[in-house]
This record gives sequence, structure tokens and C-alpha cells, in this order.
Amino acid sequence: RYNVPPSAEFVARVSGIPTMAKLPYQETADGLDAAFVGVPIDTGTSNRPGAFGPRHIRMESALLRAYNSGTRAAPFESLMVADIGDVNVNVYDLKDTCKRIREAYRKILATGCIPLTMGDHTIAYPILQAVAEHGPVGLVHVDAHADTSDVVLGEKIGHGTPFRRCVEEGLLDCRRVVQIGLRGSGYSPDSYEWRQAQQGFRVVQAEECWFKSLAPLMAEVRAQIGSGPVYLSFDIDALDPGFAPGTGTPEIAGLTPIQGVEIIRGCRGLNLVGCDLVEVSPPYDTTNTALTGANLLFEMLCVLPKIKYY
Amino acid sequence: RYNVPPSAEFVARVSGIPTMAKLPYQETADGLDAAFVGVPIDTGTSNRPGAFGPRHIRMESALLRAYNSGTRAAPFESLMVADIGDVNVNVYDLKDTCKRIREAYRKILATGCIPLTMGDHTIAYPILQAVAEHGPVGLVHVDAHADTSDVVLGEKIGHGTPFRRCVEEGLLDCRRVVQIGLRGSGYSPDSYEWRQAQQGFRVVQAEECWFKSLAPLMAEVRAQIGSGPVYLSFDIDALDPGFAPGTGTPEIAGLTPIQGVEIIRGCRGLNLVGCDLVEVSPPYDTTNTALTGANLLFEMLCVLPKIKYY
Amino acid sequence: RYNVPPSAEFVARVSGIPTMAKLPYQETADGLDAAFVGVPIDTGTSNRPGAFGPRHIRMESALLRAYNSGTRAAPFESLMVADIGDVNVNVYDLKDTCKRIREAYRKILATGCIPLTMGDHTIAYPILQAVAEHGPVGLVHVDAHADTSDVVLGEKIGHGTPFRRCVEEGLLDCRRVVQIGLRGSGYSPDSYEWRQAQQGFRVVQAEECWFKSLAPLMAEVRAQIGSGPVYLSFDIDALDPGFAPGTGTPEIAGLTPIQGVEIIRGCRGLNLVGCDLVEVSPPYDTTNTALTGANLLFEMLCVLPKIKYY
Amino acid sequence: RYNVPPSAEFVARVSGIPTMAKLPYQETADGLDAAFVGVPIDTGTSNRPGAFGPRHIRMESALLRAYNSGTRAAPFESLMVADIGDVNVNVYDLKDTCKRIREAYRKILATGCIPLTMGDHTIAYPILQAVAEHGPVGLVHVDAHADTSDVVLGEKIGHGTPFRRCVEEGLLDCRRVVQIGLRGSGYSPDSYEWRQAQQGFRVVQAEECWFKSLAPLMAEVRAQIGSGPVYLSFDIDALDPGFAPGTGTPEIAGLTPIQGVEIIRGCRGLNLVGCDLVEVSPPYDTTNTALTGANLLFEMLCVLPKIKYY
Amino acid sequence: RYNVPPSAEFVARVSGIPTMAKLPYQETADGLDAAFVGVPIDTGTSNRPGAFGPRHIRMESALLRAYNSGTRAAPFESLMVADIGDVNVNVYDLKDTCKRIREAYRKILATGCIPLTMGDHTIAYPILQAVAEHGPVGLVHVDAHADTSDVVLGEKIGHGTPFRRCVEEGLLDCRRVVQIGLRGSGYSPDSYEWRQAQQGFRVVQAEECWFKSLAPLMAEVRAQIGSGPVYLSFDIDALDPGFAPGTGTPEIAGLTPIQGVEIIRGCRGLNLVGCDLVEVSPPYDTTNTALTGANLLFEMLCVLPKIKYY
Amino acid sequence: RYNVPPSAEFVARVSGIPTMAKLPYQETADGLDAAFVGVPIDTGTSNRPGAFGPRHIRMESALLRAYNSGTRAAPFESLMVADIGDVNVNVYDLKDTCKRIREAYRKILATGCIPLTMGDHTIAYPILQAVAEHGPVGLVHVDAHADTSDVVLGEKIGHGTPFRRCVEEGLLDCRRVVQIGLRGSGYSPDSYEWRQAQQGFRVVQAEECWFKSLAPLMAEVRAQIGSGPVYLSFDIDALDPGFAPGTGTPEIAGLTPIQGVEIIRGCRGLNLVGCDLVEVSPPYDTTNTALTGANLLFEMLCVLPKIKYY
Repeated sequence: RYNVPPSAEFVARVSGIPTMAKLPYQETADGLDAAFVGVPIDTGTSNRPGAFGPRHIRMESALLRAYNSGTRAAPFESLMVADIGDVNVNVYDLKDTCKRIREAYRKILATGCIPLTMGDHTIAYPILQAVAEHGPVGLVHVDAHADTSDVVLGEKIGHGTPFRRCVEEGLLDCRRVVQIGLRGSGYSPDSYEWRQAQQGFRVVQAEECWFKSLAPLMAEVRAQIGSGPVYLSFDIDALDPGFAPGTGTPEIAGLTPIQGVEIIRGCRGLNLVGCDLVEVSPPYDTTNTALTGANLLFEMLCVLPKIKYY
Repeated sequence: RYNVPPSAEFVARVSGIPTMAKLPYQETADGLDAAFVGVPIDTGTSNRPGAFGPRHIRMESALLRAYNSGTRAAPFESLMVADIGDVNVNVYDLKDTCKRIREAYRKILATGCIPLTMGDHTIAYPILQAVAEHGPVGLVHVDAHADTSDVVLGEKIGHGTPFRRCVEEGLLDCRRVVQIGLRGSGYSPDSYEWRQAQQGFRVVQAEECWFKSLAPLMAEVRAQIGSGPVYLSFDIDALDPGFAPGTGTPEIAGLTPIQGVEIIRGCRGLNLVGCDLVEVSPPYDTTNTALTGANLLFEMLCVLPKIKYY
Repeated sequence: RYNVPPSAEFVARVSGIPTMAKLPYQETADGLDAAFVGVPIDTGTSNRPGAFGPRHIRMESALLRAYNSGTRAAPFESLMVADIGDVNVNVYDLKDTCKRIREAYRKILATGCIPLTMGDHTIAYPILQAVAEHGPVGLVHVDAHADTSDVVLGEKIGHGTPFRRCVEEGLLDCRRVVQIGLRGSGYSPDSYEWRQAQQGFRVVQAEECWFKSLAPLMAEVRAQIGSGPVYLSFDIDALDPGFAPGTGTPEIAGLTPIQGVEIIRGCRGLNLVGCDLVEVSPPYDTTNTALTGANLLFEMLCVLPKIKYY
Repeated sequence: RYNVPPSAEFVARVSGIPTMAKLPYQETADGLDAAFVGVPIDTGTSNRPGAFGPRHIRMESALLRAYNSGTRAAPFESLMVADIGDVNVNVYDLKDTCKRIREAYRKILATGCIPLTMGDHTIAYPILQAVAEHGPVGLVHVDAHADTSDVVLGEKIGHGTPFRRCVEEGLLDCRRVVQIGLRGSGYSPDSYEWRQAQQGFRVVQAEECWFKSLAPLMAEVRAQIGSGPVYLSFDIDALDPGFAPGTGTPEIAGLTPIQGVEIIRGCRGLNLVGCDLVEVSPPYDTTNTALTGANLLFEMLCVLPKIKYY
Repeated sequence: RYNVPPSAEFVARVSGIPTMAKLPYQETADGLDAAFVGVPIDTGTSNRPGAFGPRHIRMESALLRAYNSGTRAAPFESLMVADIGDVNVNVYDLKDTCKRIREAYRKILATGCIPLTMGDHTIAYPILQAVAEHGPVGLVHVDAHADTSDVVLGEKIGHGTPFRRCVEEGLLDCRRVVQIGLRGSGYSPDSYEWRQAQQGFRVVQAEECWFKSLAPLMAEVRAQIGSGPVYLSFDIDALDPGFAPGTGTPEIAGLTPIQGVEIIRGCRGLNLVGCDLVEVSPPYDTTNTALTGANLLFEMLCVLPKIKYY
Repeated sequence: RYNVPPSAEFVARVSGIPTMAKLPYQETADGLDAAFVGVPIDTGTSNRPGAFGPRHIRMESALLRAYNSGTRAAPFESLMVADIGDVNVNVYDLKDTCKRIREAYRKILATGCIPLTMGDHTIAYPILQAVAEHGPVGLVHVDAHADTSDVVLGEKIGHGTPFRRCVEEGLLDCRRVVQIGLRGSGYSPDSYEWRQAQQGFRVVQAEECWFKSLAPLMAEVRAQIGSGPVYLSFDIDALDPGFAPGTGTPEIAGLTPIQGVEIIRGCRGLNLVGCDLVEVSPPYDTTNTALTGANLLFEMLCVLPKIKYY
């Protein structure tokens, strides 16, 4: 009744076209409860480029199996899931690409399917334009950077500005926004004030996360977010570059993958209407960043509404 | 009427599931004139391993376009081509894998489809078992190694023995066999004698190829092979490791990619019944071996019977 | 009286044939208390290959010195140790390789020497066949995976099945077995039950290890294992891939090297009859996986019976 | 009287800020006969990205010395040369970047300085807008691709279209244009016709270059170009990817570095008014592409007008 | 009034000559409060070489911004800082290089400028010769190794001996010395005794740092060091090789970058007279070691005397 | 009667301690006709470091077999050959290292054994001091650089000066010296004059080698060298960096491996008294430089006096 990734007990891992988790590929989201989608851009990137993120995450996802041994979730017994390929981006014009993304997500969401997206962080803006069409949504934003700059190099659109644009357009319910893992050097002391004091975001600096489990934090986050719709946006650079070197603007002293998993597992029970895992940059991924991304996407799938647990 | 790779003029190269040349994927060869097939094994390998060859060649094939600007061939206006995925190999048992391959190719060939295969060199044996079911075939074998050892580590089956097995089983029309590019250190002086003197193969050492175009050689080869069915087996290690480092048993002072292209283009007019491009080892492919493999497979497609040229 | 690695105070680290810790090489285990042994296979591997594990661990072991500054152990003043090279594996037949391993270890063990082995995880099965010839043994198994599958791709022997085979053949004293570090996605919820409920293994999921010292756990393990013979099997993928990327089936959110060291140091006092460090895959070792393996093997040597501490 | 790179006989190569050839850095072109300039973009790129080309070429240029031992040119006894840094590109908007480039080059050219540029191929369009302000110029274009597409992904500006734009705007004297090294698969057979038959370009396919010295070709090119102003544009992908893997759209069976050097040395005597070396992509430069770029830029400097030879 | 790194909001990160943090380059320390200096040697290295440390740290430092979002320090509103390039080392004679370093630092210190140095650990000896000219100084030494060997390979000078030499020459106030992060195998048990018992150093083994914040330790260190002049020497191999693989003698189970940052931030209030970040080895830096070094140098700058905090 | 490398037909390539060609290791040259020796230094290097050359060449030499299929030489049926390990260099003092090398080679040569050395180019000087003890010798020097600088960074000894020192000490019979493959930028036009006009070397620039077989050149070289003793020194950077990227001072447009093999095979018949293959730098060897070095050393072995050919 559901699509299930082929088990490596019967089909060799090295075999097969690399869709996400080797799920079937279909062109649209019709009939799906959730879908993996790629948006292969990096034109929004300011430092190190690399647009094959979705492709490499798919490659590494061949190691994923059907069942979550940590949480006992069985996503492929609960939801109809497939890989619906990539949005056809315009690699020469970032603004046009954003329009293409917004239209593509309107169509996906119209089918009732929850998208799990791979891309760069610029895409959060047009995706949220589509997601928040019927009202502002909450946001769990895991990242080393706030991505709330106003203008960069004279431009309003880029991977450092999406959530500023979202606030301006009323796409976010700002009291139901949390940012986790922020750190690194900054342009000025003002940015923190704008987000926390003026907009009412909850901002959790990386320093507040050091040396401890984030399970207690996530209990607070669930209370903050409540039962309304919420979007989960996870920038892989939230993780320390020791674990995720393949990204464009790495900052040291970040979260561990354990904490990343805790954050996602801590979203269980929220009314998630979409998720993304962004900023995986294959040319700098000398170790296992894409594999980590694939696992985090699997963990996201495992906390979507209606997932069955053993 | 035919499948055509999406042009990068309209679909971004970075976008899409990585089938070969981004052609459609279909599960069987039904209705196809030619098909790309993967056999992702390396259990036949003696030195450096790497079984993701087909997957990486597909990844790099995103750069292929529809038309051959060197020969003016237009394969996708001539034949119905698709990617039919991988044979489901048994990575724990090489002998069982060989059986699976033979069966898979019997089915492919039964549809009248010409397979263009990616794998390791062990696979040439079971593929030729299928190809030669109705009689021995000629062979254009491009390689640094003769692959005619009798027994290696006590085993009859491996990537050093396929053509010995083929000769023993009468799968090859030995007067219509040519081996091009052989070189490197060897176990004994006997091997050369066995092939050339006893079996009647034409053996062209790499030294005979140095510093010159192979177009004249290929004219001789076409005369030798004649109009009967012939199989083209191209081991990427035929090329010098400066151009194709991603392989398991590299030998220095080999062919250039130019010569590799000349050999394939020189097969135009032959009655090709199957082709393979083998021994691409992604973990050692720090440069462009998989890309080279993708291009050589494209060149093979461009010399199949019935291809139209502008 | 004992073999001692040459000190870099007198012999340049860059100098010399790369045996393990630059110890003397000898062909057999005669006269040794402990020996480093390589079993360079990966034919049991299901995902990413790489058979040069022993060779690269030896290369990186040039940095090892004679004395353990963390525990004050002086292994080379306590035991006669050498590198006895590699088992001559059959890279084309995994079953035959297993026979060769069992025979080789019977000979090593007959001399009274304790083997410290480098290889893939398939080898635990034939090694334990030799080790347990005179009765079942306990097992400290550190790994991301349980390796207790019954059949994979139709095969009974592979790197996912060794401990299932060991249980079936009565090689393990199941109440004296502990598995530490298990995690990742799985094929089904059944595997956990089989091990913990039916066989009586103690299973410690990675989640139980997050954020804390494993010294208390190891006190419990020592109590569980008692004074009988015990084998230590350490799969490098027990460690988080941020620290050990060079392995075939990495799983995120694993143990830290600190915890790995704690586990081994926590085995001090146990009656260790053999140890292995497996699944180092050099082609994927872009950082220091082999070096980590070399250090963990040194830590194993430092907890063998009869080691002197300052 | 002239800037001279510090000799490694007196200043260690590893020492110093990495300007081009370790020449002095100055902010403008004032007082210079020639200048190295960087345009660090890759937003015009269609396949593999990498915008740090200028930075890495500068790094590798530390190996350059003052004198050309092949041609006996002494450029630093002939011209005042410096590194004038990078154009401040807008990484979020390619069209705005093109404007910035055009303005920057107008200023450079106004000082009488000849720019030697590092960047991607999109930049040839705005540079030639500045270069050809007082009339169309000739062009020696060395490349695997014609870069004369009309529209790609709906866009007029990108690294596949610059010379189409230049023709449309009358920037090129088309009878004094030569393209050398073209090859690979293409979108259609039409492109060749457009350039050769309609525009009157001389087009030299890579196939015409195989196996031979290009010195005779360059004698013909010098006759074709004559004494008028000419621009030299060298895409590193003209070279075979065995020699220059670090580029975005590599095509096999290309030119050798020897042939690349011959082409540049063959430009001696031409009235060169500007040169570029483009498409070096550091994340894919696992070997010596940037070093090759640095050497080719040095060879370009050695054939500028007024260079003294010993 | 002060030099400020160009903000990526106005100047693209990929643009510009790679000085440290893209600060202005000047030839001497005149007029500076603090300066970044490179000493590009590795002739003192015993295991893995790599002398381009300073160059690569500068490259990666392009990501640094002006303000420390973790501590709210604003160094570029507090001090005049520049990059003063590299000491011109003699790569063929380590002893002569040491003389050159000592002279260079005498000149830097004579201007009242605080040097922040990149190099290998050999350099700590000649730098401290210059720093301690007017009396012994305290030392915060963060490292995997004590670097207090007497003689290595018959030599007094190398990266394993600098602090032995410093003690012998009375450059250190030994009761105000702390060593943090020591671990790994050693030549003998004697070294620890020499430092702790005989010289009065405080020695903090890595094992004492495992699993916890080092903020409490640094409170003790500040009490130990008091208000006298102190030098901070940070060997990148203090960090676990999972985070900093690009170094010559990596030891597993080390400090995390979080702990490294805590140590440096814990030096706030000390009378720092110089700092170094050493042993970054680019050829082994497959991930982000140089980036980590750049960030640690920025953190050092942020705790110098007279820094303003928001 | 002779040592023979284990055939991969019986011993798996991945198995065994990595001596050169897996030959037996012995501590001295006693009883040998020829020996492989390592001198693991790079302190003579001016650009990119890397002292593990010998170790990596040994690793890659596992692919060598007993018989030369190109020339039909059977070296292991002709000479007694072994690997005698490395000279114990002083990595902290290049001058002391040179003394150690000279002494070591005096001992090797005293046994009548011909050394085949791996190292950096500095070593040619002390080796030739030992080799020429009974009179000057001829020299076949294959290299991108002349290595005849007088002083570099104030030093007489380094990898740029060995043959200047040899000339000064009368170690070379200058009319019997040939240098092949020289190219790249230079410090001044004087160096060429010094060698060719004043000393009487035959100097063959790389440009003279482009596009052609070097067999005719080697006929001339054999005539020039005659029957006296001659030393063969082959710097891997003679080869184009497309084939041998793993070296410290690569220069583009160099020799091909085919030409390298032709030069060595062209030495057949000369009275070779020693050979070296130098400047392999493993950290930069992303492809097959060490493998190429291993093959070239094998080719050198195959042209030593008294080799038998089939």
C-alpha cells in the first residue's frame, strides 16, 4: 500500500538509480502524503559554492533503511512517500528562480503533500511564500546564522536574507519562531536586537547549547510553538564543521549531530507543514555531510504528523 | 518519437534524477533499440576496489548533450534509448552474481535491444555467455591487461580471467578478436604467446600506439572483423592513468582519450551487438574518470548500427 | 628482551618500512605474547568498499610511541609483540577466505599469542571459530550495527551476519555479550528483540551513551563479563563519522573517540583472548580514521593481561 | 624601474601575501603597462561551480619566476606590471555584475594598461564592451565550447553566450576571429554553421589539433588577424581534463598544455589589447589547474607588445 | 580611525587579495596595536609536513566579520590591526630561520605591537626569546604534546623542544605556566615529572577535560597567571583530529573547538603580550582546520587588553 | 636463487607489508646485486613539502609484477634484489642528513650493490659523492629544472643546487652529462649558458621533446655517454603535472610518461652504477604519481647491466 525503500537484505545498496532512499520517482506530488524535493541552486551563496546538494544527498541516502531504530518510527508504514525530483531552476537569475520555486510549491501543497526539501537557504523565502498563503506559520530554524540581513551586496534576495523577507511579508507568526545554534562573527551587534527584541523571535545562541542535551530546550519549544502550523528549516551549518564540512559558510563550535537529531526528534507532535535541509555543498564535502543531510531528512520524515511508532 | 536527453538550454544541468544522460528510466528493455545498464560490482577486482562505477558515470553524464559535434552523429534521432538501471548483484558471492548477470542479459537481448554496460571486467564473461548464445562473436577489446589469466588466487572467475573463460566456452570467434593497449609488468612471458600464437588474437601492445593516430589501425581492425556480430569491451584502464586515475589496476604509458575516441569512432560500420565500459572506480576518481566513461559510452552509442549522421 | 618501537627521538618517523608501530615483522606468532595481524578484505562489505585497511593503519601507526601517557601502561616492557603480517585472503571468494582465516588463527592461537586484528567485520566469525574452539567466550562488541542479520542478499556470510553465525554455532556465551553504540535506521523492529530478549545480550544503544562518560557503563560490563575469556571486537563505525569518516556504512550521532578510548580502557582487568579493530576503509578516509584505528589498537594492547603500569 | 617578482633565491616561496607572481598590489591601473585583474564570479556557470579561481591562481603563481626560459622573454624588464586585485562583483545578480565589470574595465583601459584577467567566461562580454569602445577587435578564442548560444534557460547572459552578444553588438571584427579547440557533444548541428558560414569565424575543431604541433596553425592565425587590435580569450577547458580537471564543463580529448603554450607563444607579434584565462574552478582542481592557469597568464604576459627577448 | 575588515554586505567574500581577515597589509608593525604575522615553516616538523599554514589561514579568514557575536567584543573599534605579512624564513636551515624570527619579533615588539602569529611550534622558542627580553613571562600552552623534549634526532631545535629551551634560558616564569590538552602515547613516563614536579608547570591532561566546560578551569588559570605578562601558544593539535585533521602529529580524544574557544575567552583579563596559533598543515587539511585556526586567532584578538565589548 | 616478488596469482595484492614490489626486506646490501633504498626527506624542498615519498612508492609498488611485458626483461631472474629500507635522516638538519646519506651509500656501494633510490633531489649530491669516489661519472639527468643554482636563500645545499656542488667537487664527467626535459620560468638567462657553454653539458629543453618519440635522442645519448660509469637521476617533475601532480615544483608542458619510459629503456646498454627517482610528494599526489614512480624504478631495474631478456 505504501512505497518502501528496497531493503539491502534483498537489493544490493550499490544497485539502482539514486532517488532519495531509493524510493520511486514520480513527477508530481499527486497521491503523496510527503515528498522529497530538490532545489539545486547555490546562486544565493556568498562564500563557497556547490549546487549539487540534492543529487549528493540522494546518492548517500542509499544507506537509509525503512525503520528508525532510535525512535521506533515506521514512516513507510504510515505515509505514502516518493521522490518528486527537482524544481527546474534558472541558474543565471536568482530572482526568476525564486518565482519558479514559489509556483512549484504551490502545486505541491495543493495536493496536500508535505514537502521535505533539499537546497540552499535562499529557497526558504519562496517556499514560505507558498506555505503561508493561508496565514502566517511558526518556524523552527536551526542554523549558525540568523539569515535576517536586510540587504547584501545591494540585493534583497540571497541566502542571508530569507527570513527578513518573510517577516516583512507577514509569512511568519513571530512569537512562534525559534532560532537555534546561532554563532560566529557578525557584522554588528544590532542584528540580535532586531530579531529578539523587536520581532519577538526566541533566539538560542550556540553557546547556550554547548555540553548538553537539547531535549529540555525542545520541550520549551513545543510549548512555544503550540498546535498551529509550523515549518522546520535546518541549515546543515548549524552543525559543527567537524561533522559537516561540506557547506558554504562554516562556523566553528557548533551543534553536534546528536543535538541535531534531538532537535528534530523534539519536533514530534508539532503540526509540521514542511521541512527543509539546506546548504549541503558537495565540492567541500570531503567526509559525510551529504550522508548526514540524508539522515536528518529521514529523521524529519519520522516526526511528521500521523507517523506510527512501534 | 525518441527519448532525448533534456537540453541544458531548457533544463538546468544540476537538476534531475541522475539517470544516464538524464534519459528516462524504465525497468525493462522492452521497446528499446539500445539501453544503458549498470552492473555495480567490484568483487572481481584484485587491487583497488570501488563498486559505484555505474552510479558515478550516471552522475557525470549530466553534461552529455544530444548531438556529437565531432562526428555529426545524432543518436537520439536514430534509436530509442533509455536507462534500464542496474542488475541486482550479490555483493557477497561473485559466482552467483555472474549467474544473475547472464540471466539479466538474456532477457535484454531477447527484446532486440543492444546493451551498453557499465561495470567491472568480470562481467564480460556472463554478458558474452548471453550475447554468444547463437554463435561465437568477434571482440574489440581495449585494455591495459589481456584478462586471459587461467586461475587467480585459485579462482576461475575474476576480472583477470573473463576472456580465458570465453575462449574455453567457444564464445569468441578468435580470428575476429583484437586487443588494443596492452602494457605493464606481467607474471610471465607466456601469456602473450597463448593469445597471439595459439588463439589467433590480434594483439596490439600500447607501445605500438605511442605518438600516433589510431585511425589507420582501426581501418585494419574493421577489415579483420568484417560484417559478423562483434562485441566492444573497453576497460577504462586502457587509457593512461593521467587521464583516468579512477581505476583499480592503472598502468602508466597508456592510450590517450583521443586514441580511445578514435578506436570507438573506428568501430563505425561494424555490426556491434553490445558494448561495455568497465573498471571505473569512483573512490580513486579524483579527477574525471567517470566523466570520461560517460563520454566514451556516448561515443559507443554514436557508432551503433542505424545511427544517422548530419 | 622485548621488541620496542623505535623512538622518534632517534629514528625519524618518516623513515622505515611501515609495520605496525614499526615493530619487527616476523612470519609466525612463535615466541610472541601478542601480535598485530591484518586480514585485508572487504568482500564482506555492503556499501562502500576498501580493503587496504591494515596497510593504512600500519602507515599511520608510525606516530605511536612506546608508553601510554593516559593510563601509564608500558606494553613494550610487558609483552613480546610483533607484526606478523596479513592472512593471504582470496579476494574472489569470501567463503574460502573465511576458511583461510580460521586456519590462520588456529595456528596463531596455538602458540599462546593474543591476536590484535585489522580487517572487516566478516572476519569476526572465522576468528571466533578459532578462538572458541575450547568453549564459548564472552564478547565486548562496539559497533553502530548489531551484525546479527540472518541472511543478506541470500548469503549467510558477510559483514552484517557474523554474530548470528557465532550464536548458531555456540561460540558465544550469550549472557557475557555486550553490544555498545548501536544506532541508525534498520530493516525492522525485530532485530533488537532477537538479541536482547531471546539471546540475552546486553544491548546499549548509542542514545544511552550521548553526552556522558562511559566509565560507569564499563564498570557494569566488567561485572557482567567476569573472569572468563572474552573477545573485544571494535567496529570503527561505532565512532561518529565526524571522527571516523573512512568506513563503509557510517551512521551519524555515534560515539566519540573519547568514549571509544573509555570502553577499551574499561576492559582492563578482563581476560582478553583476542581483539579486533575493523571496517577502516582507506579510500573514504579523508581525515584520520586509520590513525584512530592505530591508536585504538594501541589502547587494546595496553589492556591485555599482564601489562605493567607505572 | 620595473616591478619584479621576488626571486625564490632570496625570498622563500612559501612566504608572502599571495598576489599574482607576488607582484606588488595596487588599487588602480595608474602607471601600469599591464595588470593582473580578478573577476571572481561563477554565477554564469551551468554545471560545476567555483568562484575562487582568481584567488587560487594567485596562490599557485608563487612558483613563477621572472624570465621565460622557453622563449627567452623578460617581461619584467620590459613592462610595468602589478596585481590590481578584483572587481567587486555582485554574487547575487549576474546582470549587475556585468555592469560593474564593464565600468571597471573602462577605467583600467583609460590608463593605457593592458588587462590580463582571471574569471569565468561570462566576463568576456562586458570586458569586450569596454575593449571595443573605439571599434571592433579581433579575437583569438581558445575553448572547448563556442560560447555562442543565443539563450540558455531563458537568459541572454551566461558563460555560454558571451560571443553571441559580442557579435550582436558589433564588438568583434568577425573575419579576424578564430576559435580553437572546440569539441564535445552539442545541442544541435546548427551552431557550427552560424559561426563559420554566417559570421565568418575561423573554427578549428579539436579533432584538427590532435597529434600535432599548433605552430603552423598559429602562423595562419597571425596572417588572418593582421596588425589590428586583438583580444585573447583562453578558457582552461580548451585543455584536456587530464591536464586541467578543475573546471566546470570539461570535455575529453582536448588540447594539451603544450598546444596551449604554442597557441599563446604563436600570438607573439599580434597587437594584443587584453587577455583572459577563464573557468578555473578550485573545488574541482584536485591537481594543477590553477597552476596551469598561472603559467598560461605568464605566457600571455610574455607575448604582449614591447616585450624584450634575450 | 581603525582598520576594519570589509563587510561582506558590501564587498563580495570571494573578492580581494587574501590578507588576514582582508585587513590592509603593511610591511612593518609601525602604528599598530596588534598585527597578524606569518612564519611559514615546517622544517621543525617530525611527521607530516606542510609549510603553507599562514597562507591557508589567510584564505579561510575571508569569512571573518568585524564583531564577535558570542562575546560582544568589537576588536576593530578598539585596536589598530593589520596583516604585516611573513617573516622571510630560510627553508633550508632551521637554526638560521630561528635567528631570523627572533630578530623580526624584536622589531615588531619594539613598536609596542602585539603579534598574533601563525606558524609551526618551533617558532615559539625564538618568539619567546624576543618577548621575554625584559624578563620571564607566563605561558598558557594549549597542545596535545608538551613540546619539552631535550633532544630529538640529535637536535636541540625542532617542534618538540621549544619549551625546554625556553626553560633553560629563563624565558618562562614556570609557576605561571599551564599546559592544557596533553595526551597520546609518549616516549617515557619521565616527561610528565620533569614538567610538573621539577619545573612547577600546571599540567592539565586531556583526560581531565573530557565531557565538560573548561570555564571553571580557566578561572583557576587566571588566578594562577595573575596580572603579569603572559604569552598564549595554541597548537591546533590540541583539538581532536575530528575537528582539525590538518596537522602533523594528530592525537585522538582531544579537546573540542568549543573547549578551545572557552580557553581563549577565558584568557580575557590577562595581560597578553603575544599569541600564536600553530601547526596547521594545509596538505592534510581536507576539511576546516585553517578556518578553525582563523577563528581562533580572531578569538585571541578579541581578548587582548583594551578590547571594547558591547 | 633470486628474490622474486610474490605473484598476485597466488598472494592477494592487498596482502603483505609494503616493501618495494613486496620484495624481502633486509637491513644491509650484503649479497645483493641491486637494492631499493629510501631517503625520506623534503627539507631540501622550496615549494610544496612531502617527505613520505619512499613510503608511498612502496605502497603503490604492490601492483608491480616480475616480468616487463614491454621489453621482455626478466630482472628477477637476473639479479638478486631486495628492499633495504631507509637511510635514517635528520629531519631537523639538512647538512647532517647529507652526511648520513653519503656514509650510507659508501657502505652500500662497498658491497658491489647498485642502489635504486627514492628521495628528494638534494640527495643526488651526497649520493654522487659516494658514487664518484673513484673518479667522475657520467649523468643522465631527467628533470624540469637544471638544479644547478649556486646559492638559494643563502644556502649551498638544497634541491636546487646538487649538480652545481657536484661540478665544483669534480664528481661529474661533464662531457658525459645530459639534461632532458628542462622548462618553465627561470631566474635569469644566465643559467643555461653556465651549463651548456661553460661546463659542456648537453641540455635538451622540453620544447625539443614535444610531440615526438625520444628513442632517437637516446641513441645520441648512448653515443655521448659511452661505456664509462653513469648515474641516472630522474626527477618525477620532468613529467607533465597532468601525469605526475604529486611533486613540489611542477612545471606545465613537460614530458609524457611514455617519453619517460623511452628515456629509461634508452639507457639499456649503459654502464649504470646507480639510479634515483626523486621528488614524489604524497600529500599532493591525488592521482598516480607514486605509482608512476614505482613503475619508473621498475623500468630502471630492467636496464641495469646483466639483465636477461626473453
